Amino acid sequence: MLVRDLGEQGLLQRLQRFCPAAVVGDDGALLTPTPGLALVITTDMLVEGVHFSDRTTRPADVGWRAAAANLSDLAAMGASPLGLTIALGVPGEQSVDGLEQLYGGMVSCLETYGTVLVGGDISRAPVTTVSITALGQVAPDQAIRRDRAQPGDVIVVTGAHGAARAGLELLLNPQWGQDLSPAERQYLIGQHQRPQPRLDVVTQLRQQFPQARVAGMDSSDGLADAVLQICRASGVGAKLDRHTLPMPSAFLRTMALPPAQAQEWVLYGGEDFELVLCLVPELAQPLVTLLGSEAAIVGEITTDTGVYLNSGAENIPLTLGAGFQHF
Amino acid sequence: MLVRDLGEQGLLQRLQRFCPAAVVGDDGALLTPTPGLALVITTDMLVEGVHFSDRTTRPADVGWRAAAANLSDLAAMGASPLGLTIALGVPGEQSVDGLEQLYGGMVSCLETYGTVLVGGDISRAPVTTVSITALGQVAPDQAIRRDRAQPGDVIVVTGAHGAARAGLELLLNPQWGQDLSPAERQYLIGQHQRPQPRLDVVTQLRQQFPQARVAGMDSSDGLADAVLQICRASGVGAKLDRHTLPMPSAFLRTMALPPAQAQEWVLYGGEDFELVLCLVPELAQPLVTLLGSEAAIVGEITTDTGVYLNSGAENIPLTLGAGFQHF
Repeated sequence: MLVRDLGEQGLLQRLQRFCPAAVVGDDGALLTPTPGLALVITTDMLVEGVHFSDRTTRPADVGWRAAAANLSDLAAMGASPLGLTIALGVPGEQSVDGLEQLYGGMVSCLETYGTVLVGGDISRAPVTTVSITALGQVAPDQAIRRDRAQPGDVIVVTGAHGAARAGLELLLNPQWGQDLSPAERQYLIGQHQRPQPRLDVVTQLRQQFPQARVAGMDSSDGLADAVLQICRASGVGAKLDRHTLPMPSAFLRTMALPPAQAQEWVLYGGEDFELVLCLVPELAQPLVTLLGSEAAIVGEITTDTGVYLNSGAENIPLTLGAGFQHF
Repeated sequence: MLVRDLGEQGLLQRLQRFCPAAVVGDDGALLTPTPGLALVITTDMLVEGVHFSDRTTRPADVGWRAAAANLSDLAAMGASPLGLTIALGVPGEQSVDGLEQLYGGMVSCLETYGTVLVGGDISRAPVTTVSITALGQVAPDQAIRRDRAQPGDVIVVTGAHGAARAGLELLLNPQWGQDLSPAERQYLIGQHQRPQPRLDVVTQLRQQFPQARVAGMDSSDGLADAVLQICRASGVGAKLDRHTLPMPSAFLRTMALPPAQAQEWVLYGGEDFELVLCLVPELAQPLVTLLGSEAAIVGEITTDTGVYLNSGAENIPLTLGAGFQHF
């Protein structure tokens, strides 16, 4: 049997059997080397031609996004960053200038979030391949886990969704969204090129709600995917309210975006790197107030294990992403 | 400028400028999230066709060696393992069976040393690419650093050198070493296929010499390379005594190995994954006794920054490896 026959999900399931069950299934693995300190470790591989291309993304943005995605995985576990390592595979024909731009973008993101590159490895490879591992720390009882949602919790998203997808569309089809203002265009493209991991939310949770039980993950694979993963891990269901989904204000203005398409991007666009959190309503409302205008309560956790979007009269089931790679 | 024009060392120097200077230059980076605990993080990328090939190495051995190399980096820092992550790139045409053997070999090595795989990522890639990050812990004052050697220290190697190189030769040229016994052949091949990271030495150092200042690194790139790196980092020199270099007993028996060739393999063969340690003579002798027959004191650290092999009347300067990749 070849990898191609199994697909990404099938392969993941096979290979996860080599890990202890307790460490699999979150944005990062939790280790507890000493009482009072949990470490979070998470890793990502980005391959040229699969995850990025020099033709559509500047090397500095590839570096920023790679760092941001890993920092977002730490934020999704409630952890603050200790440092990142990078293993780099490169062909001899890769330009050194481009590589320095990639590292520059990465380090610029790390500096923004108060952390550093702490090591790595380089190797010859047929295409440029970037493998990042991020290490973070969290007090054990403040770790955010996917499997801790409970019926009665409400679902908080920390910001608008769909902007990164719209930004990509603007890059791929510059003629799209001609009625957007220059500031709106720049905002959407920025959300795609320079996503902001929500480590600030981690700080707020620690300061304001240190005792709270918070379940959650990040929305890097889309808002719908995050809700589905949390529900699956926690053995619960969810009902989202369509009218509460926070979307970028530009979506309401551009005539190039029909409502159904806007909803699709908000739920399934991905790469927004916001957090999707489940907690009791008494804490959710003050958290949303604290986080500001684009954070919102978008639904609730239910006993029934279905996951729906309520849209007026009908409940539309959410589906797992089209985001999987074909091998 | 292309990567090919710079070469591995040139590229490393360029990219290391993106890391804080304090964390670069050891087998792993040291982080101290909380007083009393230092973390060591180290990463390696292995690319099919560069570091391994299905034609010469069984997938299970590729997995074992990849895990062993990273555990050896932890041992080289005086750390015990907390866990490893693996980022895997694979083409669709890769056999699933082969991948499971690779993971099996890796986990078998990890189990042998009491640790586990704690997570990872998979991606499509043009060739099979394995990127491993290992995390370990050490008491901050027990970390082994390259830059702590002092004149007057003696140099201890924890075992024989050259066996992994001889094992590779036996695999590449089965007609070589016909006068070796089956047990000797198996030992040499085993040292190549299933190297043993010296985490046991870390345990012994902690139990028997918890207060000792120990400088050192592992000999994965060769014994000569390790001595040169330690001297460069510590601003000292070294004199090795040719007659004390521990070589596999099989080397003395096989008529296929002229003394000059044996010496070359011992000094430059690489991949033996022993530790090269510098400490005061009063502690070195009991350590060697504790570690057993193949450990040895092989020389001493000098004020003069030259690094020599003393061979009777002459001092032969040691040179940095031919081990660098060409891009």
